[in-house]
Amino acid sequence: MQKKVIPELNPNVSVDCVIFGFDLDKLTVLLIDRGQQTQGGPRLALPGNLIYNDENLDQAANRILNELAGINNIYLEQVGAFGDPNRICKEADKEWLQSIRAEPEARVITVAYYSLVKMADYAPRASSFAKTAGWAPVTQIFELAFDHYEILQVAKDKLRQKIKIQPIGFNLLPEKFTLSQLHKLYESILEKPLDKRNFRRKVQKLGIVTPLKEKQQGVPHKPSRLYKFNEEKYEALSKNGYDNFDF
Amino acid sequence: MQKKVIPELNPNVSVDCVIFGFDLDKLTVLLIDRGQQTQGGPRLALPGNLIYNDENLDQAANRILNELAGINNIYLEQVGAFGDPNRICKEADKEWLQSIRAEPEARVITVAYYSLVKMADYAPRASSFAKTAGWAPVTQIFELAFDHYEILQVAKDKLRQKIKIQPIGFNLLPEKFTLSQLHKLYESILEKPLDKRNFRRKVQKLGIVTPLKEKQQGVPHKPSRLYKFNEEKYEALSKNGYDNFDF
Repeated sequence: MQKKVIPELNPNVSVDCVIFGFDLDKLTVLLIDRGQQTQGGPRLALPGNLIYNDENLDQAANRILNELAGINNIYLEQVGAFGDPNRICKEADKEWLQSIRAEPEARVITVAYYSLVKMADYAPRASSFAKTAGWAPVTQIFELAFDHYEILQVAKDKLRQKIKIQPIGFNLLPEKFTLSQLHKLYESILEKPLDKRNFRRKVQKLGIVTPLKEKQQGVPHKPSRLYKFNEEKYEALSKNGYDNFDF
Repeated sequence: MQKKVIPELNPNVSVDCVIFGFDLDKLTVLLIDRGQQTQGGPRLALPGNLIYNDENLDQAANRILNELAGINNIYLEQVGAFGDPNRICKEADKEWLQSIRAEPEARVITVAYYSLVKMADYAPRASSFAKTAGWAPVTQIFELAFDHYEILQVAKDKLRQKIKIQPIGFNLLPEKFTLSQLHKLYESILEKPLDKRNFRRKVQKLGIVTPLKEKQQGVPHKPSRLYKFNEEKYEALSKNGYDNFDF
């Protein structure tokens, strides 16, 4: 009979996942509710947990996302490691760890991951210690458990840096979309209004979108022209970036 | 009497530092020699060690760099976390850990940092478990202890990404320099030849260099014009980057 090996949790290292979602209107982030603590404090947290000693960090991130929120197969990129010795200092956080961890006092360094997905493609389903799991609008989040609010800000910065050097939107918009929808996506990520004419001019200059003969149908306003991504150009820019200092 | 608290090492988390140096001719990296192992294997390693439980990751990186190589006050940026469960698999690495660690079998996740400095500004001085510390040309490194060779490659990629969106060279070249020297710096980092005319045209277009009336003196070839950085422009581009998709 094969001996079943129970994987061993590493008490000192966790991963946390910042999964951004887009619903054609706003940027959201996947959060779990860990339930009420007697000490009060934020109930919402990024999905995260300790790693097992036999898995690598990417595997841990994928496993934990699945365990807590029922979400699979997301391409994750590292945000970085967060290791302030006081990152677990709030009373509510300590109380919560007492209830779920074998060594609740251990120093924990966390490695954060992020991704940006189309919200409609994923239906979070809470399990394990998550009471609920769901999408929250990024602009409406003001506090989170542990240092998760700080991690969220750094992940937002990474996302913004990324869209400055690479195109974005391929898996976030419908196959045929309007430039207003693409504009909305960029505004949501950058969290600031972008001049519409300027934006259109830049996008067209990059050559990543191709105008179609079709227009929108069944809309209460003047129908807009539909576009699709120019896959070849989009791929090339995704790979090489569009800095103008490319030797 | 004040009780002296002996700081406690965290057995599961280390930092490793990739300090790139430039000497006007080539890109180098700071390595330590950990001495001969009976099992053979690479003797050279990035300076790195376990973190203390009362310090944050940035502090750990600075402390360890100082302890192993006598180098202080370097601005370090994170490369990322490396956590393959098999990152400590070579026999020589295991043997070495037996000689320096309390828990040599522990799973260790490492957080890598990097920086790029002018070699002439720093004179490495080995101490602690480093037998020697010094600069090695990046192009002549083919293996290192643990996963340090892989970490070095990822750090090189980060550096290359960075110089594609931000100017570089301010603290790496003399105050007055030739465009050939700047060209050499970029070639060294990108590890490929760059067309000289193209390079000059791009640098001048960015406006980061200002030509001086002076020329080189005492050189065995036709003296070249000297330049200095346009600090204002350089700062602005360092902050905002020079992508052409800046909304």
